[in-house]
Amino acid sequence: MTSDGAYADVRPSAPAGTMTLPARYYCDPAVFEREGERIHRAMWNAACPVDDLREPGDYRLVEIAGDCLVVVRGEDGRIRAHHNVCRHRGTRMVEAESGCLPGSIQCPYHAWTYGLDGQLRRAPHMDRVEGFSVEDYPLASAACDEWGGIVFVRVADEGPGLLEQLGPAAPRLEPWGIGDLRSAHTERYDLKANWKLVVQNFSECLHCPVIHPQLQRLSHYLSGENYPVTPGAVGSAMDMADGVETMSTDGRLVGEMLPGLPEAGRRRVGYDILLPNVMLCLHPDYVVRYLMRPLAVDRTTIRCDWLFSEEAVSRHGFDPGRAVVFWHTTNLQDWRVSELAQQGIASSAYRPGPYSNREDQLWQIDQLILERLGEA
Amino acid sequence: MTSDGAYADVRPSAPAGTMTLPARYYCDPAVFEREGERIHRAMWNAACPVDDLREPGDYRLVEIAGDCLVVVRGEDGRIRAHHNVCRHRGTRMVEAESGCLPGSIQCPYHAWTYGLDGQLRRAPHMDRVEGFSVEDYPLASAACDEWGGIVFVRVADEGPGLLEQLGPAAPRLEPWGIGDLRSAHTERYDLKANWKLVVQNFSECLHCPVIHPQLQRLSHYLSGENYPVTPGAVGSAMDMADGVETMSTDGRLVGEMLPGLPEAGRRRVGYDILLPNVMLCLHPDYVVRYLMRPLAVDRTTIRCDWLFSEEAVSRHGFDPGRAVVFWHTTNLQDWRVSELAQQGIASSAYRPGPYSNREDQLWQIDQLILERLGEA
Amino acid sequence: MTSDGAYADVRPSAPAGTMTLPARYYCDPAVFEREGERIHRAMWNAACPVDDLREPGDYRLVEIAGDCLVVVRGEDGRIRAHHNVCRHRGTRMVEAESGCLPGSIQCPYHAWTYGLDGQLRRAPHMDRVEGFSVEDYPLASAACDEWGGIVFVRVADEGPGLLEQLGPAAPRLEPWGIGDLRSAHTERYDLKANWKLVVQNFSECLHCPVIHPQLQRLSHYLSGENYPVTPGAVGSAMDMADGVETMSTDGRLVGEMLPGLPEAGRRRVGYDILLPNVMLCLHPDYVVRYLMRPLAVDRTTIRCDWLFSEEAVSRHGFDPGRAVVFWHTTNLQDWRVSELAQQGIASSAYRPGPYSNREDQLWQIDQLILERLGEA
Repeated sequence: MTSDGAYADVRPSAPAGTMTLPARYYCDPAVFEREGERIHRAMWNAACPVDDLREPGDYRLVEIAGDCLVVVRGEDGRIRAHHNVCRHRGTRMVEAESGCLPGSIQCPYHAWTYGLDGQLRRAPHMDRVEGFSVEDYPLASAACDEWGGIVFVRVADEGPGLLEQLGPAAPRLEPWGIGDLRSAHTERYDLKANWKLVVQNFSECLHCPVIHPQLQRLSHYLSGENYPVTPGAVGSAMDMADGVETMSTDGRLVGEMLPGLPEAGRRRVGYDILLPNVMLCLHPDYVVRYLMRPLAVDRTTIRCDWLFSEEAVSRHGFDPGRAVVFWHTTNLQDWRVSELAQQGIASSAYRPGPYSNREDQLWQIDQLILERLGEA
Repeated sequence: MTSDGAYADVRPSAPAGTMTLPARYYCDPAVFEREGERIHRAMWNAACPVDDLREPGDYRLVEIAGDCLVVVRGEDGRIRAHHNVCRHRGTRMVEAESGCLPGSIQCPYHAWTYGLDGQLRRAPHMDRVEGFSVEDYPLASAACDEWGGIVFVRVADEGPGLLEQLGPAAPRLEPWGIGDLRSAHTERYDLKANWKLVVQNFSECLHCPVIHPQLQRLSHYLSGENYPVTPGAVGSAMDMADGVETMSTDGRLVGEMLPGLPEAGRRRVGYDILLPNVMLCLHPDYVVRYLMRPLAVDRTTIRCDWLFSEEAVSRHGFDPGRAVVFWHTTNLQDWRVSELAQQGIASSAYRPGPYSNREDQLWQIDQLILERLGEA
Repeated sequence: MTSDGAYADVRPSAPAGTMTLPARYYCDPAVFEREGERIHRAMWNAACPVDDLREPGDYRLVEIAGDCLVVVRGEDGRIRAHHNVCRHRGTRMVEAESGCLPGSIQCPYHAWTYGLDGQLRRAPHMDRVEGFSVEDYPLASAACDEWGGIVFVRVADEGPGLLEQLGPAAPRLEPWGIGDLRSAHTERYDLKANWKLVVQNFSECLHCPVIHPQLQRLSHYLSGENYPVTPGAVGSAMDMADGVETMSTDGRLVGEMLPGLPEAGRRRVGYDILLPNVMLCLHPDYVVRYLMRPLAVDRTTIRCDWLFSEEAVSRHGFDPGRAVVFWHTTNLQDWRVSELAQQGIASSAYRPGPYSNREDQLWQIDQLILERLGEA
């Protein structure tokens, strides 16, 4: 099972002549700016875990394409996303990364006060301004929705709904019940690499035998099966080797087996990307969730959570360590080559190179990007 | 006196529909560059206190709109401002921030030597260059003048005189005799905010009850009276509450009452801006003087001096502490909201917002800026 | 010999009206970019000493105009320069500054493997891509040659040979046999100055009496004789004062007198620039070699080696200290004024200034630069 011969490379050839994207897609701040407009603001963007916002007033600041949003649970229990900009003189109002707001958002400059629903409630001395009405000055807000335990935000006014964007990924992920899982561990990473290099790295395992020897022992790199790519989701599944129960330092289960998994889900690891900024590794007993934040054309931060069933997490003496170490090690290996790709692509000598038939999804992702940028 | 009711909000409404400026005036380096040309180089710009340059040869380096000037007192007692650039190969000549020059400015590279008046005196080996004459290579200089104990520099060749720029502010400030006062304390601040946000913050007290509780106790925010705005000066005065002698941590005088103040000056605090970069707080017993230096579209440094009468400063055991703590505290409160304004205005969600009738001067200052930029 | 009178200033006047270059040549990133294309990539650029690459597999990473090259000695003994960019997905392959490669260059991402000659040898799974052939994907390479113990690289595909570029400098330098000398000491410098300011500083000694008193004692600044400027080389020689044997802290020899020097070479110091990035100080007993690396329009790094005969370096108890201290001191003096020139030229007040007749070579170098930039 661990030699190449065990898995025939049966995947169909990629379209003849498929090549990587030109350098500007990874190096040009103007392309990054355009991606901000056409991808990150236009699509449903994972903002934060729902678990960050349990009580009314709980909020988290979220940066999307240069904008700062206050994602907050209202008194009515609903989560909303407001631009962190006072309508009076443009002041940033909320400073701490996260916390609990006391039923309203008050600008620290002149005390304009907004409800958690974004409505302007009080604007001192504006009553003497002819024609002024608080109704005209709510906070600018973004569309907000939840799925799978994740708060999604769409900055653009118009666009399809969240479920439409997720497409077949939503039913495919259903059995893992990720909305009910709990984070047992969080890591935060800061990469000097374009966000698309992270997505591409996640989308092929051709590099696995080269940089992930410990992963390769548990799951053969040729065992992958890709799902059809849709505008909002990319995914695949890989077999675990005989005798391997999950991806962990010793191949043994770390959490409880998740209930309701199909037979295949017990013998495979799912790798799903919810474009543009969520990645998920689905194991029989736990899920690793990556939330990406593109900060610049060559810089991306990633929050990574290890999610287990409530039952597992609350078990006395539960230790996620074997899963954490396994994926933290794998992550660092992936981030390193992603950063090296960023460096090399910035060279004047870089030319688009040929994709192999094991990288067919990358080419399809490139096409999605180009379509969104209007450059297909 | 401390409730809103005590002071009726009698100020006339601002012109209908007055709004804050678009974001680019605070965020676009190209606008900042243009302001450098049309405002900071074109207007008389406060360079440093006259007291920094007491003896011939005393100098201070001053940065205006990216240029470095040597502001120096000559052997003839006159203060001049020379660009710190040798006419030979362009070398910066003077390195230390301040000091005393020995009767000449010598370039450290090839020893071209200039008088403190900027005339080239010696240029080794240039005598063999046909047509060369030292008369042709004086240091580039800026216009220089003094008023109120401040050295002003105008980088542009042409323009109105200093007194013309100051307009009615000069006679208005006359009674405080600020040219005769002495600095008892200096603070230096570095702000991540556009210089205009500092000017605007200084020009309204609508924010006082929100962020300056200690100030609000001494002087009611609605007590202000604005002077007519002129191209070079903006100002207002506010009443002190009953029993309050000056703005200090305990409301008691800190220095000697300044002689020659009009009755009103003993019961009020004056707030005067000499555009583009001086701000003054005028008390019965002392003056706080701010000299601003815009370093980038989002960065400004400020030197702040607490000025008292010579008599007070030389009094045995004189302690300016109650005035210093009062305004240092107030300054930090103001710089914080100015930085928050800078952050919020940089958001794509920022839209010009409505000024209240208590912010009429801000709108007038905006118009002055637009006029100078040729965008009114 | 040490007073100005001893050396008449007999050099012919420079062409009337020769002036320094406008500021943009030292401050504008766009000019720097253009220089990268038209000068640093187009010309033979010193990459590293041959001595860095003694054995097959020995390599050094070299940055030229933003590109990273692997300069490596092949199994066939030949030195080549490959762009450090995998032809598959553009990954930077070699990370450490220098080291020894095991007969091949393997990309750390997907294990594409290249010979030290740059040929692609192995590309996993690409055999299933229709029309793919390893012959089509060698590493992008740059022309590579050696002279005088220095590896030279020309990134541009086309251009004259190295000896043609060196022109008369090659035979002129022949007697010092610099290819046979060994480095006894290395210093690395990081300057906030444009690379051309370093070249110009090296090309005149008019500044010597001002900033190099210890040098001026050993060699009179007016004693220089310039060689005719050629497109690839600039040079001059200066006499040492009576009784001075070499440039060192005490004027005494530090190494063995180099064999084969002409009589003049024993009484003079040669200053040669091999454009665009080598500078050499030639003494009777040793050579100081500067390899420059322009990193930005206002930043240059310099590696400086003190080269002596093999015999001297291997002598028991050999100490290069008197030569090292002498030139390290001189270097720091030169780097300081070069940085001051960078600062001053960046001022809006900078205007091109007049060259003296002792700076005739600088004007000629300026003309070479302008010609290469197509702006003569």
